Amino acid sequence: MPLDVSATAIELTRQLCDIESVSGNEKRIADEIEAVLTGLPHLEVLRDGDLVVARTHLGRERRVVIAGHIDTVPINNNFPTRFESEGGVDYLWGRGTVDMKPGAAVALKLAAELAEPNVDVTWLWYDNEEVTSDLNGLARLARTRPELLEGDFAILGEPSNGAVEGGCNGTMRFDVVTRGIRAHSARAWMGDNAIHKTALILQLLADFQPEEIEVDGLVYREGLNAVLIGGGVAGNVIPDEATVHVNYRFAPSRSAADAEAKMRALFEPLGEFVLRDLAAGARPGLDAPLAQQFLAAVGAEAAPKYGWTDVARFSALGIPAVNYGPGDPSLAHADHERVPLAQIAACESALRAWLA
Amino acid sequence: MPLDVSATAIELTRQLCDIESVSGNEKRIADEIEAVLTGLPHLEVLRDGDLVVARTHLGRERRVVIAGHIDTVPINNNFPTRFESEGGVDYLWGRGTVDMKPGAAVALKLAAELAEPNVDVTWLWYDNEEVTSDLNGLARLARTRPELLEGDFAILGEPSNGAVEGGCNGTMRFDVVTRGIRAHSARAWMGDNAIHKTALILQLLADFQPEEIEVDGLVYREGLNAVLIGGGVAGNVIPDEATVHVNYRFAPSRSAADAEAKMRALFEPLGEFVLRDLAAGARPGLDAPLAQQFLAAVGAEAAPKYGWTDVARFSALGIPAVNYGPGDPSLAHADHERVPLAQIAACESALRAWLA
Repeated sequence: MPLDVSATAIELTRQLCDIESVSGNEKRIADEIEAVLTGLPHLEVLRDGDLVVARTHLGRERRVVIAGHIDTVPINNNFPTRFESEGGVDYLWGRGTVDMKPGAAVALKLAAELAEPNVDVTWLWYDNEEVTSDLNGLARLARTRPELLEGDFAILGEPSNGAVEGGCNGTMRFDVVTRGIRAHSARAWMGDNAIHKTALILQLLADFQPEEIEVDGLVYREGLNAVLIGGGVAGNVIPDEATVHVNYRFAPSRSAADAEAKMRALFEPLGEFVLRDLAAGARPGLDAPLAQQFLAAVGAEAAPKYGWTDVARFSALGIPAVNYGPGDPSLAHADHERVPLAQIAACESALRAWLA
Repeated sequence: MPLDVSATAIELTRQLCDIESVSGNEKRIADEIEAVLTGLPHLEVLRDGDLVVARTHLGRERRVVIAGHIDTVPINNNFPTRFESEGGVDYLWGRGTVDMKPGAAVALKLAAELAEPNVDVTWLWYDNEEVTSDLNGLARLARTRPELLEGDFAILGEPSNGAVEGGCNGTMRFDVVTRGIRAHSARAWMGDNAIHKTALILQLLADFQPEEIEVDGLVYREGLNAVLIGGGVAGNVIPDEATVHVNYRFAPSRSAADAEAKMRALFEPLGEFVLRDLAAGARPGLDAPLAQQFLAAVGAEAAPKYGWTDVARFSALGIPAVNYGPGDPSLAHADHERVPLAQIAACESALRAWLA
């Protein structure tokens, strides 16, 4: 059955969720989205891999990009969706109901229905957001067809509990590797234990007090954590190597270079420092006129986004961008992810009112 | 080509090394050993799995068990063997040249040649010493045919640099598991980092001062080390579990229960304590008359054995046992293991003189 854009945004969310689209498997959902938009007279529809773009060309003074990813993390006994109620609240439960089929559904319904929005809109549904950055559909478009991302303001439909979350923290991952000398553990004094040397690294992390940093009026909370650890050879060998894999989430006021320098200063005395991944955050950009207008129209308080999201890609292109979508971000990727139906309806009507 | 027991013990060592016999793959080497002994009129030859027993029945007053394992740890670009010289010393280099084909070769040559030793001898070549205890060939025989292990004294041909190493340390392996709460690492404050909690465990281990304990005149050096560590879920998740795998080597004056109680007292406050493996050591037993005679005959100083060896199995059966064999035990399992040829010849002639 094709998607039904005349149904409610809630029903359309359910339809999108029930097309399995774990990263790498977005062809069918992209086909379905493309199919319902193609032929609408107010839209130019383009396809790039499993990314779909639909644009109005109304000659408006300003252009807004409204984007969302269509992939999910792997399903885990939470597919297809179901409706459920708890404590008087109605939910849609299952994979993608938070991250981020509702945002994609609201955009799809409005793209189809708003033939004459008061700004030109570039609607975007993209693939491979939940996997490594080199596969990300939005990043691909920024490299190959950046003109399609041009605009004065961007809204990402990532879950934000229906609030407007500005900018995002940066993220950095690195290894701290300790080294020693192997020996039989019956004669430990002939070796040098690399695992024991990680004690100082872990104590530093346990004692670390992450900062809260105000950027353009929003307070960003940082975080510094060991996320993986490994080391050792066998049960009877003094280990000659151990690796602590650390994730640093840093406020958008720090550049990537500053964040790296700070981490190197802390950890280089304790082991070999190996940078694995580094992405700067995005300042909230809420002083842009369209952002101010948008905040006023949806009547939402602005809050900082802690997780790294693709708003940083717009920020890097000089386009102010915010996250605005239904769903509790702390349930993203959870096996029990679910979205209050009222949030989907509220987001749809707020966005519709602002654009109409 | 069959084994040639008329060749030197050095040459026979090379022949045994060049039959690949990583634990679990001992059938061929056991077949070859059995083949050269079967039919010799002074020996009764028995087979149990990949274990070979050869016994004299001369009606001597005392019986000595001379045993050695025929398996090795995995090869690692060190097979087959080669002869090499360095600093005026001739070596046989390669997997098994220390642990413990020379001991097995000396025993094989003497078993074949000594038709009338001055004690009855039970010669033993067994499988699966380098893997978990439940696979160990000697342990299997102790369970199923303990009468074959009876004797007044036992000699294991484990590498001891040609010295007599008495008894052995006990060994214990256990996990200390820390727990926390998962969360997205962008909102670390919603979780509880289990890896950070291992800092206290590792600092305790790093600071620990192992004891030196005198037992029956020999000084045993203990050791306490993290040998493996692991934890974490993914690069963007606060980890809810981490495991430190610890190896404790303890003097033979401690019982297994005492060793366990000591470790529980140290680590139970820091995590869940999971016992994985526990084997008591063996007191040196050098006050036994045959042990005294043997020490005098080979003219060697007695030293403590640090690593756990199968002498503990004899000790548990009430049979005093020592380690005596060519090769530097600190090169056991090393990829560059090699044995000085002179040690093989010296061990053979000392053992031959004592038995003849």
